[in-house]
Parts: sequence; C-alpha cells; structure tokens
Amino acid sequence: MTFNEYKATGKINNKHMLTLMDYSTEEIWEILKCAIELKKKQYAREPHPYLKDKTLAMIFAKSSTRTRISFEQGFKQLGGSPLFLSTNDIQLGRGEPIRDTVRVLERMNIDGIMIRTYKQSDLEELAKWGHIPIINGLTDEYHPCQVLADLLTVYEKFGKLEGLKLTFFGEGFNMANSLMLGCAKVGMDVCICAPEDLQPDPAVVEAAKKSAVGGAKVTVTSDVDEAVKGADVVYTDVFFSMGQAKDPAKEAAMMPMQVNSVMMKKANPDAIFLHCLPAHRGEEVTDEVMEGKQSWIFQEAENRLHAQKAVMYLLMKE
Amino acid sequence: MTFNEYKATGKINNKHMLTLMDYSTEEIWEILKCAIELKKKQYAREPHPYLKDKTLAMIFAKSSTRTRISFEQGFKQLGGSPLFLSTNDIQLGRGEPIRDTVRVLERMNIDGIMIRTYKQSDLEELAKWGHIPIINGLTDEYHPCQVLADLLTVYEKFGKLEGLKLTFFGEGFNMANSLMLGCAKVGMDVCICAPEDLQPDPAVVEAAKKSAVGGAKVTVTSDVDEAVKGADVVYTDVFFSMGQAKDPAKEAAMMPMQVNSVMMKKANPDAIFLHCLPAHRGEEVTDEVMEGKQSWIFQEAENRLHAQKAVMYLLMKE
Amino acid sequence: MTFNEYKATGKINNKHMLTLMDYSTEEIWEILKCAIELKKKQYAREPHPYLKDKTLAMIFAKSSTRTRISFEQGFKQLGGSPLFLSTNDIQLGRGEPIRDTVRVLERMNIDGIMIRTYKQSDLEELAKWGHIPIINGLTDEYHPCQVLADLLTVYEKFGKLEGLKLTFFGEGFNMANSLMLGCAKVGMDVCICAPEDLQPDPAVVEAAKKSAVGGAKVTVTSDVDEAVKGADVVYTDVFFSMGQAKDPAKEAAMMPMQVNSVMMKKANPDAIFLHCLPAHRGEEVTDEVMEGKQSWIFQEAENRLHAQKAVMYLLMKE
Repeated sequence: MTFNEYKATGKINNKHMLTLMDYSTEEIWEILKCAIELKKKQYAREPHPYLKDKTLAMIFAKSSTRTRISFEQGFKQLGGSPLFLSTNDIQLGRGEPIRDTVRVLERMNIDGIMIRTYKQSDLEELAKWGHIPIINGLTDEYHPCQVLADLLTVYEKFGKLEGLKLTFFGEGFNMANSLMLGCAKVGMDVCICAPEDLQPDPAVVEAAKKSAVGGAKVTVTSDVDEAVKGADVVYTDVFFSMGQAKDPAKEAAMMPMQVNSVMMKKANPDAIFLHCLPAHRGEEVTDEVMEGKQSWIFQEAENRLHAQKAVMYLLMKE
Repeated sequence: MTFNEYKATGKINNKHMLTLMDYSTEEIWEILKCAIELKKKQYAREPHPYLKDKTLAMIFAKSSTRTRISFEQGFKQLGGSPLFLSTNDIQLGRGEPIRDTVRVLERMNIDGIMIRTYKQSDLEELAKWGHIPIINGLTDEYHPCQVLADLLTVYEKFGKLEGLKLTFFGEGFNMANSLMLGCAKVGMDVCICAPEDLQPDPAVVEAAKKSAVGGAKVTVTSDVDEAVKGADVVYTDVFFSMGQAKDPAKEAAMMPMQVNSVMMKKANPDAIFLHCLPAHRGEEVTDEVMEGKQSWIFQEAENRLHAQKAVMYLLMKE
Repeated sequence: MTFNEYKATGKINNKHMLTLMDYSTEEIWEILKCAIELKKKQYAREPHPYLKDKTLAMIFAKSSTRTRISFEQGFKQLGGSPLFLSTNDIQLGRGEPIRDTVRVLERMNIDGIMIRTYKQSDLEELAKWGHIPIINGLTDEYHPCQVLADLLTVYEKFGKLEGLKLTFFGEGFNMANSLMLGCAKVGMDVCICAPEDLQPDPAVVEAAKKSAVGGAKVTVTSDVDEAVKGADVVYTDVFFSMGQAKDPAKEAAMMPMQVNSVMMKKANPDAIFLHCLPAHRGEEVTDEVMEGKQSWIFQEAENRLHAQKAVMYLLMKE
C-alpha cells in the first residue's frame, strides 16, 4: 500500500477524532500506515505540505510539552499554520458558550481544532455545532492520539499488533480507556491492572470487549502477577495527574503496581516499556526501567508527531 | 472602483487607527470598499500577500477570541507574520514605560502594533513615541475595528448605509462611542439607549453630532420604544464586561433593554440583530434572537477578519 | 573577511551558548563579525534564510520584551520557525525532569533551545542530556547574548574594542558577570562598581582576569569616581530585577551609583551610555541620561537582534 492510496480512500476525511470508539479496525490501520509513510518522508526530508494554507486552532486548558510541540511541529511540517490558544486567551465555555466559539472559529478560516481539556462533553459540543474536524488532544476520559502513537511504536518493535499483549498499570482513566479500545480493535490482548476502586468504567470495558477483533481479550484485574504475565508491552502512567493533589492512601494502593526491574522480569523477555510521560521516577516507575534497554519511551514520544500528522492529514485534507 | 485604486490613493497609509474620530467619511468608505475586495479575494482563494515580510506585534492585556484570531489570521492571509504578546509577556507600562517599549519594538523590525488594552492614553503614548501604525483592538473608550466590521455587515445586508438607523442598547462605553462616530460619519442615524446614569460621555456625543453627514441624527435616550422604532439594526453588548463584577442594581436597570423577540418586533420588519460577542443569553439578549433569522452575528464576527485586513493593508502597505 | 568565511570555519557549530566562559577571543570576534554581516543583509533587505526548516524552541520562565522579540524575529529572518513556550506551557523541571524534556524535544525535530530562566544549572542539564545547541537567554548568573549585543554596539561607536574601558554600576549579578568575561576576552578594561556586599562572585572575577587579553584590566570597586574615570562606556542595570521586592536599604546603598549627568561628565567626553533595559528612570539612571545624546540604548537593544542572529546561525547551521 502506498501513500497515495490513503488519499484515494478518503474514508475518514472530515471525521472527528474524539475517541477511538468511533474508529473501525480498518480506519485505525489506515492511520497507522499513513503515519509510517509520513515518518519515512520526514526522515528523508521530503517535503509533504499536504495541508498548505490550512489553519489548526490548538486550544489548551492544560499545559503540555508533548501535545503542544507534536501538534504544532506536525502541522507545520504538513505545510499548515497552527494557531496556539490557551483557554486563558479565549475563555472557552466560560466567557462564551462553546457553540458560539466554534461557529466564530470556522467563520474565520479555522480548518480544524485540536483541543486538550477536561470534559469530553466539551469536545462533543464543538463537534455538534461546528463543521470542522475536532481532534482530542486529551480529556479526562480519552487520549486517542497517544494510543495511536503507542500502537505505532509497538508495531515498529514487533512488526505486528495482533496477538500481542499490553498490560497497563494505572488508574481506569483516559489512558486505560483509550488503550482498551485501541488494543482490542487491532487484535491485541489488553489488561488493565489497578486496585479495585480505581478500575475503569465497566461501560468502556464492555465497549472495548464488543469491538475486539481476532479473539483479543480485554481484562481488568488487581492481580499484578496475573496482569504482567505474558505481556509484550508494559505501560504505566503517573499516579497523580497534573493538578491532582497527592493522596497517600492512593499512592500506597498503587505502589505494588510500580514498574521496576522485578516487574519487567515477569513480562515476556523481549517486552518493551512504554509511558505516556511525564514520568515520576520512584513512583509509578523506577529510573532503572525508564533508562533501561527495554524502555521505548522516547521513540513513543516521537511517534506522537508521526501518528498525529496522519490524523490531521487524513481528517483535514481536501 | 477596483482594488488597485486603493493602492493608488494612499491617503491613510501610515496613519494610526486609534479611534474613528480621526477618520473622514471618505476614509471610512475606503476601508469598507477595500474590505469588500479583500473578502472577495479570500473567498476566491486568490492569494493577496501584500504585507509579505512585515511583522505585526499583537499586544493583549485582555484575552479575546475574535480579536486574537481575526487579526492573526488576517495578517497571515496578507502574507505577514504576526507576533502574539500577552502583557504578561512584555509587562507593557508596568515593567517599562511605553515610550521605551515602542522604540525597542520598531528597532526590531516590528512594522505595526495591534493592541487590546484598557486605557486609550496608552495607545496615544505608543503613537506619540513610535513611527509605526498603532491599531486599536479595543480599549475602554473605543472599538473602531468592531464598528468597521459592523458597517460592512450592514452594507452587505442593505446595499447601502446612508439613511439607515442603528439602535444600540447598552452602556455608554467603547461600543456606544465607536458606533456613534462610525454611523454618523457614514450618514446613518444612531440611537444609544441606556439608563440615564449609564449614557455616553456628552463630549463624544457632541463629536459624533458634529461629524454627522447627510443629516444623520445622533440621539441618546432611556426610552426603549422610542429607541427601537424604525431601527434597521438592533445592536447590544454584554451588561458586564470581562472582569467586571455583576451588579444587581445595574442588571435590573438594564433588563428593560434586553433584546428579545418582543423588542425585535418593534424594529423595522427587515431589521437585523448584531452583537459584538461574546453574548450572555438571558441577560442582554435571548437565545431566540441570537439563533433567530434576523441574527447576523456570525457574519458580523467574520467581518472582523475582512475589515481589519483592510485596515492593516491600508495603514501598513509600503 | 567575508560572510562566507564564517560558514567555512564552523568552529562553534553545534556548541552551546551557556556563558562566555566557554568562548575564546577568536570565537567572540567570529560572532561579532558575523553579526555585522547579517545586520548589513537585513538593512539591504537581502534574504538570508540560512536556517530554513529549522525550529528553535524558545522557553521562558520570566517574561521579556527584548529577548522574546529579538530571538523570534531573528530566527524568522533566518528562515526558521520559532516555537514559543512559557514554562506555564511545559512546566520545565517541575512536572518533568529536564533530562526527559530535552530528549523529547529533540525527538520532535527541535533543532535548538533558547531559554530564559533562573538557574544556570538548568541549562547545564539541558546541555548534558540533549544533542542540540542550548542558548542562554538570561539566567541569574549569566547573560551572554546581551553582552555580545553590547560589544557590537561599542564596536559600532568606536570602531574597535581593545583598549577601551567599560564601567558597570550595579550588583554583581548576571550582567556584571557576563560583562567582565566578555570585555576581558576582547581586551577591554572592565570595572564593576557596587557596594561591597553586592559585588560579584570572586570566582567569576578571577576567571575573567585569567582570560583577559591585551593587558585588559578587570577591577571591582565601590569607589564611584575611580570607577567612572576614563570610562568609554558607562553601563547600568535596574537595582531590583523583575520579581524582586524593593529593599530601601539596598536602594540607599545603590543611589550613589546612579548614572546622571554629573556622573556622565566624569567619564570620557565621547563616552556612551548603555543599559540592558528595562530602565527605571530616577533610580539607576535619570531621564536626562536615557534621552540624552550619549545614550545608545536603542541601538544596543536593536543589536540584540543582530548579535543573536549570529549566535543562532553559527551554532545551528548544518
């Protein structure tokens, strides 16, 4: 399959990227293959200004290194012009209802919106009232672009996705939700390991199970050993998100899920370690694992750039 | 009149846009006609990089969706390079006197300044010490670029301006001031309707009356029915600006001026509703009017882009 | 020496610019001569996009007019694409260790980092873990780019540097440190005049003395008359940096060092006055001196642009 074939399909053109819930197995593969092509072009320094003269509004309610830079660099590499807006700049949903803001933005030649905020419902409101693609750069519920970068990284390591197992140690929050959906849809077993009161919403678990292909298993457990057994990918995230206060009880409950060298030895011998970053060494992961040979975290971070370029290209091209 | 003729006149080249007080009827028409030409080019996707290699410093002391995006997009469409600065970034007038800042900016190849701030005197200080055009993106006293967009919108609806009547329901503040000046100068009757203690500065009313052409009437009243009678354009603004605390007494005094469907029925049958946005539904305007057929608010918002492009082009071209 | 010769030497290509401590006399001259060439090109409007397709991450923990605009404008004039990040946007060193951030940035096609922050050690950490040039836009300890602009300004006035005397009235902080190093290395006498308890770190004084060429003298004194005697350049800085509270005792101790017309008369007759700005008139300098004929402050500010373009070009070119 060549890059030009993606252009031809146009299946996801003008769609939103709110959650992987809305994407089929075939569509996820289309994004991943497009990302691989775009990454090749970038490494070959071959210009690929497919979104020339387009503007992406980038709206941030939470600060972020990776999301900010990967979207801004990626959109520029595609020839477009990013417009960075913190919610201090536009007071989205406070000074003005979202339905007004999106209608103004699209009137002013904004061709798409990337947004990092708290409530998924804000994205749904943008999508409902506007006519331009809305891309989820992180909400409390979903983080689809991160998972697309993760799947790309896993594919680069193993040359396949179906039949592999990814284990996520962490709260049943945006990363757990999106990993369950993404992995299940490409035929990967996915296991979320968290203390019982921190496990994901059963409705999302159910949705992931229903969309699983190739017999992929979606499991949720608090049993660390069972979780890590047979894992090809060991994944974790911070115990406390940005802005969340440290809760000693929660930290104590999470510490048995720390990814350290003992934990990594229980996974498959060629397993890789992933982390969406930023990481808090000594909490959810040790420095030894972060800096160790099994760590693919910087390749994973770089793949945010390539995966999101594919998303922006496929959604926003003419 | 063709677009190239504007280039030829050069009458307002290198002027400031601090208030419409400084602009003649002919100059306002030059801006409006230029805006129409630039809007056509934008819709036809015809490149118009007349300000290539120019830089516009955009200084914001107040956050803003429309001002930020319309100036930034517009300047880019003209081929220029906008430089966004919040006053947090540069501490204008606090860490450094304005007369130093503007002299530094123009030394660093800044070709013009768009500023949204509180005091009109800050803009006058920039204009006094610098040699580059200063454009008012909103002060407590004036909002000329909004009114140019408003006049463009009214012209698009009625095919003319002279002889029409615009009624503004709201405090005698920046919008009232600039509407009085702009309408009077293009021969439109303009009526400001506000409780007596919230009416505009008599000096500005007087200035508007003196500059009126074609027998245009400038009136100020607290009589709602008298105000709306014969109105072709019904205009309102928020009761409380960004940062202003809600004052129940003021709100009670303003509520009879709310633009609702009853109010709209008292205006001319083909009257349009305008609002500089953001709007607070249920306060100065009802949802019914905002979303109704007479509402031209999004066309008005879009015209910020086109009107300001004309301002930037005419002031900043070589 | 022509501009193309700089390309050929490549001596400082891919170096960091953390402090002038790391730069030889020859390297400082290479930067100054390159700045002169680039300034000529800019005045002649001759395009010089030598850093096309490069991205500079500009990280600010402190707000700044001159640093922000000079780097952003300069990098754009070199054809590159600046990416402005306040530390609110990326939480450098708080949300994430610096060693992770820099490795992510370089993975995302960031070609260099300009950073304005507090601790010099943060820059050293960036330099240690990354593979891209780190440029100091101001720390508590050093301000090398300002001093390069200062030397350029002095050269433009006197046509030489060696043998001249620069006197700095102010605390032994970043400006004093970098002026001592920069002046000594180009053969200029440099005198830091401050109350005894506000004088610079003896280790930096010692380093400056050791690196002095052509018999240049590095002196530190609290004797105002001795300091200003024979000065070709009189330089000062604010008594209290941004964010520092006013301390009446410190202000009283500093006031005898105020640069006023009496002070300027004690310097050489053709001496110039420099200030890194912003200035607080009536404190470290009078309005009379700021606006007087000996004041070269705006030329100095402009030279930030040209000197930093040379730094970025020489460090970041292929």
